[in-house]
This record gives sequence, C-alpha cells and structure tokens, in this order.
Amino acid sequence: MTQLTEARSGRITAAMREVARREGLSPDQVREAVAAGEVVIPANPAHAGLAPRGVGRGLTVKVNANIGTSTQFPGLDGEMAKLRAALAAGADAVMDLSTGGDLDLVRRAVIAGSPAMVGTVPIYQAAVEALARHGSIVQMTADDIFRVIETQAADGVDFITVHCGVTRDIVEMLPGAGRVADIVSRGGSFITGWILHNGRENPLYEQFDRLLAIAAAHDVTLSLGDGLRPGCLADATDGPQVQELITLGALVRRARAAGVQVMVEGPGHVPLSQIAANVQLAKSLCHGAPFYVLGPLVTDVAPGYDHVTAAIGGALAAQAGADFLCYVTPAEHLGLPTLEDVHQGVITARIAAHAADLARGIPAATAWDLAMARARKALDWDSQIDLAIDPPLARRIRRERNPGETRTCTMCGEFCAMRLVSDYLGREQGTC
Amino acid sequence: MTQLTEARSGRITAAMREVARREGLSPDQVREAVAAGEVVIPANPAHAGLAPRGVGRGLTVKVNANIGTSTQFPGLDGEMAKLRAALAAGADAVMDLSTGGDLDLVRRAVIAGSPAMVGTVPIYQAAVEALARHGSIVQMTADDIFRVIETQAADGVDFITVHCGVTRDIVEMLPGAGRVADIVSRGGSFITGWILHNGRENPLYEQFDRLLAIAAAHDVTLSLGDGLRPGCLADATDGPQVQELITLGALVRRARAAGVQVMVEGPGHVPLSQIAANVQLAKSLCHGAPFYVLGPLVTDVAPGYDHVTAAIGGALAAQAGADFLCYVTPAEHLGLPTLEDVHQGVITARIAAHAADLARGIPAATAWDLAMARARKALDWDSQIDLAIDPPLARRIRRERNPGETRTCTMCGEFCAMRLVSDYLGREQGTC
Repeated sequence: MTQLTEARSGRITAAMREVARREGLSPDQVREAVAAGEVVIPANPAHAGLAPRGVGRGLTVKVNANIGTSTQFPGLDGEMAKLRAALAAGADAVMDLSTGGDLDLVRRAVIAGSPAMVGTVPIYQAAVEALARHGSIVQMTADDIFRVIETQAADGVDFITVHCGVTRDIVEMLPGAGRVADIVSRGGSFITGWILHNGRENPLYEQFDRLLAIAAAHDVTLSLGDGLRPGCLADATDGPQVQELITLGALVRRARAAGVQVMVEGPGHVPLSQIAANVQLAKSLCHGAPFYVLGPLVTDVAPGYDHVTAAIGGALAAQAGADFLCYVTPAEHLGLPTLEDVHQGVITARIAAHAADLARGIPAATAWDLAMARARKALDWDSQIDLAIDPPLARRIRRERNPGETRTCTMCGEFCAMRLVSDYLGREQGTC
Repeated sequence: MTQLTEARSGRITAAMREVARREGLSPDQVREAVAAGEVVIPANPAHAGLAPRGVGRGLTVKVNANIGTSTQFPGLDGEMAKLRAALAAGADAVMDLSTGGDLDLVRRAVIAGSPAMVGTVPIYQAAVEALARHGSIVQMTADDIFRVIETQAADGVDFITVHCGVTRDIVEMLPGAGRVADIVSRGGSFITGWILHNGRENPLYEQFDRLLAIAAAHDVTLSLGDGLRPGCLADATDGPQVQELITLGALVRRARAAGVQVMVEGPGHVPLSQIAANVQLAKSLCHGAPFYVLGPLVTDVAPGYDHVTAAIGGALAAQAGADFLCYVTPAEHLGLPTLEDVHQGVITARIAAHAADLARGIPAATAWDLAMARARKALDWDSQIDLAIDPPLARRIRRERNPGETRTCTMCGEFCAMRLVSDYLGREQGTC
C-alpha cells in the first residue's frame, strides 16, 4: 500500500489529512490530487517521526536542502550540523548526498534526526562501494545498485533520485549533440560511464520494474533524475535534455500504473526566456507529475552568487508550475557548502518559493506579506523582525546599522516617508 | 542643445558614438533611438570625465547604486568610499541621495570622482534646507526647489528624479484608495506633505515648463519619479500608482517636445505575476520612454535579503522591457547600507541585468556565459575565477573550501561529472 494506491481506493490517510491541514485544503482535495499523480507525499512508513508534506499542484512550493559528506569532509558531526541548519532555516526536505565516510551510518542518522522528508541518490553509494570493492565505478553490477536501493528504502528514505532516463540511445546521441558541458549530473555521469564501458543498457531503465517493486513495497517516491540536464545556458532545452524528458514521461505512467508515487527532476542552467517553456514541457510530457527543479540558474557567470541566480530562476519556474525547488548555495561551482552556505541557500530558495506562492495566490502567503506591510506602516519594529523570513539576521542588521535609533531607521531618519505621510494623513501610528 | 535635439537634427554626438561602440551598434542606430526618445544618454556637459552610457530599448540593462550621507552618517569620506565600492563592483550610475552634512560639497565630490553618470533627487536638498531655514519641510517655496535644481544642474548632475506626477488630485484620492502603506517614496512624501499643508498644486507639476527650461539648458535627463509607487505587495498596480503613470506619460511628451531627455521610474513592491504587466503598462502609457525600476521586490517579508527579492523582480522586469535597475541592498528596510552592502547590492543587480540581457539575446552577454561554460568544462579554474562576476569572492570561496584541491572541487571531488564524462568521451581536458 502506498499513498497513491490508498488515494485511488478512496481512502484518506493520516499523511493526507496532515497535508490538507497545513495547506488549508480539504482532505478529499488532497486525496484526489494524490490519486491523479499530481501531488506526491513522500512518506516512507519506516521513517519514524516524519512530519509529512505534499509536493505538487495547488500546494505551496517546497524547498529541499542538499547535504552530505564528501571524501575530504567525511565526518558525521559536520553532516548533522548541516541537517540542523537546514531544518532551522525552514527546509521542507533534505537530501543526503554523502560520498565520504560510513554512508549507512550517516544516512540512518539523518533519517532519525529529520522530521522533514529525506531523499537520497542511491547510485552515489553504489558508485562509492564499487570503487572500493572493484576498483572502479563502471565495475558495479545491477545487483549492486538494487541492493543499495533496497537497503536505503528499508532504512526509511522517503524519496530517491534515479537516473532512469539516461539510456544507451541518449548516450550515443551525446557526442554529436554539440553540447558545451556534456553531462554535469554526478549520477548521470556514473550511468553514462557505465553504459559506455559495459556496452549495455542502464539497469535503472532496463530493470525499471524491479525498481518499481522496491518502491511500491516501501512507498518510496521516485524522483526521476535529469542526468542530461543542461550544465550551461548554451546547452539548455536541447535534444538530449528533451529526449530524456520524453523517456521520463513514459516511466511516469509505468510508475503510476504500479502504484508508485513519482515526480520528475528538471534543469539546471536555463536562460530566463526559456524557463516557463521548460516547466510547461515537463508538465506536459510527464503527465502533470510534480516537477522538482535544481535552480534553474539564469546565468553561468556568477559563482559565489548562485543562490541568487537560482532564486531568480526558481521563482520564475515555480510561478510557471514547478512544485519543488532544490536549493543552491553560494558555494555552488566552487566547493562543498559550509554551515552558513546551507543557511543562505535554504533562505534564498524559500524566498523564491514564497514569491511564487504569492503569484499563485496562496492565501497564507498573501496574509504573511500583508502582516509585514502593516507592521512596516506602523513602524512596529518588533513585529517586522518577528515576521521576517530570517529574524536573527534582520535583528542583527537593524541593531548594527541603527545606533540609538528607535522609531525610524538610518536609511531616512527624520525624513522617513512612512512617518511623514502618517503624520499628514492623521493615520494611527506605532508606538515603538 | 541636448542629445535629443542633436539626434533629431541628424547629428551624431561623441556620446552617441561611445554608446554605439560599447553596445556593438552603429552610431546611427543609437542616434535614431535617442531621437525617438526610446534611449537616453544622461550626460551633462558640465560633468568632466564622464564616460557616457545609454539607457533604453536595444541596449544592455544598466544598474544604478544609491549612495548618500544621512543625518546620522554625514561624513564625506564614507560617501566617497561607497562611490568607489559601487564603481569597483561595476555600477553604471550612482545616485547621490545625501541628506546629511554639506550637501553641495558631497555632491560636487561625487561628480568629480565618478566617471559613471550621476543622478540626484533635488527635492531632498530643498527639504533639508527648508527644515534648516524655515523650521519645516512644508515651508519650502517653489523658488527654493528650482534654485536647488538650477545649482545641481550647473554642477554637472546627469539625471534628476523629479516627482512631477504627485498631484493634488492623486493626494486627494489617497485616503480613500485603501492602501496599506500609503506613500513610501521619500520625495513623494515631501511633496504630499507640501500639497496637504499649503493646499496648492505640486510646483514640479504646475511649473513643469520652468523645470524643462533648466533641463534643456544643461542637458539634464529627467527621471520622472514614482512618488506613488507601491510600498507593499497589497498596494501594487492600484489606482494611485496607475493614475500617476498616466500623468507621467503626458509629461514625457511635453519633455520630448521641449528637447529634454526623459525616463520614467517604476515600482516598488510587486508580485511576480504583475511585473510584466507593470512594465508593459509603463512602456505603453509613457510612449516607450526608458523605464527605471527600483526592484521590483517580489515579497515584503525578506528584510536582510532584499537584494535577492529585488534581483528576482529586476530580472523579470528587465526581461519584460525595463532598461535600468536601481540596486537594492541587504540593508533595505533596516538601515543605511554599509560598504559591503553597496558591493552586494551592485553585484546582485548586475546579475539580474545580465540574466535579462541573456534573455534579450545581447550577443556580448551570451559570449560571456559561453566562455565561462568552456572554462568550467575544461576545469580551468583560473579562467573561471577571471570570468566570474565577482572574481575576488569566487577566488576566496574556492580557496577556503578546497584545501589542497587543484583540479576538481570538494563538492564532488573524485566524482566530478565534468572529469568523468570527459574521460569517457575522450574530450580534450584542462591541465590545472
């Protein structure tokens, strides 16, 4: 039994009820959207302490934070600190992308410590283990891959990224496609190397039913990865990318038929002018499945500011219908993020998600902004800080920049427009 | 003689030639756009050392940095440091919005020190002087205002914001308009107070011909201010805002008829879903005049991150046709920006402008991203840093996050997709 099969049978689960409560919808509205495959609730029954969230049409846009150890930074403590930072900043999901240290230990600790849904990319662990066991990634067997998936599903992972659409056909198409950056997806590159080396089809595609059986048994939501996502603006919306999306659309139907919840991942680096088209294409080719985007980054030239380039693209994508934003941190393209990068990444992704919620007319989003506008008009600084998306930062900046100032701020001081116009119009005023 | 009258007479000025060279256009293309009023070149002949830039249709999107002293921070040194920071970060223009200290001294120092065009809001100085001379802002006379404008024009200011559209009619409309934040424009609030107190029409509107005479004599470009811009999302695209825009459209025609270069300022706080409509409305009502936006901020709830909320809105506005972005810093709504805030504000506004340039198909913008994509694919880190929009920051993050790492980065380490796929496909590789 999965959320999808339950919804189709007309049963409202506790998770659907919780999602409905949070989103201000009726439980039956949520059930219908889950049954249609337009909303997923990644909620592995083995994930104790999970607070379930829905992802998809009609819901608030959700935000994921990627964390994870690396070869150079393999420690559990650093990883758990990043988990806490991501949750404190308001992430709706975390993905454990660890490739260093004891991968099983780290993942289990993340699941145990996270009330937010947890995702993974099992091919990472399969690749790391193949490297240790066989000396190279391309030596991994299909059984190696599925054993990892089975283990992670049993551990309670709520959703997994699987690059099922990186097929032999597409890999053969790649050298002649005129791409500048070829493949920038880590998982996509592992699969590509495996296909080229072994001269065989991608096991995640060839044995898709085996994947579905595991996902159905544990109600793990599949997140169909975009191994061919464009890694630079010049490669956006090209043949390999769209070819993969067509394949993913067919897999969405097979997953749904098997009672497996499924969402689809999207780009990547995309010019502002192509973002809405990319979202519409994904929604159309993939039968309205929830769409999960990494960025999109609207320029290649801003390393150090890719949380901003992603916020621009993410806001626009979510306005156009994307449902789930993977954060990008200031360290993107430069190195592994620090704790502060994680914090910045989550907050900026939440800003993009919220901007889209406002554009989509979500009542709770509109009410939040209205409360802030009223606090600002009343020069009520305590409420402004409390209502800020990052209260500690807002409080710190206000304190540092306004020595001795209580009512207005040093931007305008005695020339504060809010104060002057309230005085002239005889409006009620704040007392701070 | 102004750039506009020269263009109409078929003469190509040195400034038009320089703008054409920088934009990759022919001098005659620039001349035609200036003659049509769709491009302005704010270039006061008294501004020695100015490197002229064009603003408008078909050109790259430009970025302005607001600097300026305040009552609490009146010093010239801090102001000049901000000017240097703004220029170093790549601002195309700076506005001196000083309200503290010796205003003439500060402004003259900024003009002398800035090869970028300099703008001001003369009503600020008029208000500050009225407060000192008469004890209140509302005591200022029309002559006080025009004397300041005349002085600033003679000093070499390239463009001035004038809130000509804040008329008695609109001020009377305001209390019944249901606004949450009334007026948030400082200049707009001064004029509003003046109108309410004196019971008379806005001198900048009533004596618009007097303003045009000064602007024509010094070739000062008018930037018609949006005193009624929405200060929160709830007030966006409402009656007072659009009423003012209609008035500004009529004034654009009068300015052009007088040979005066003119652009129009726009919002403000605007939901993502209304930004394109706002730009189209402004371009249509104001006869294709260059459109200069402050933000737009796509949510009210992110003090501390308003450089990000403005980058989201600014990118979308510029894609829709806005020509000039006023930066917003992380200190917006909280206090006067620091040097670091100025730097961050300029870079994030440049990212928004560049994202729009890419969407608009500006060849130089596309070439920049392509060069970065190739450097990234080649794992050529030196070129990646050189091509970054903020090379010192990119270098610092790379160094801090990658102890001992030379070829890949700590995000993926030995699992770098770029490296793996290049290996498999036998692509040429970087040597770093």
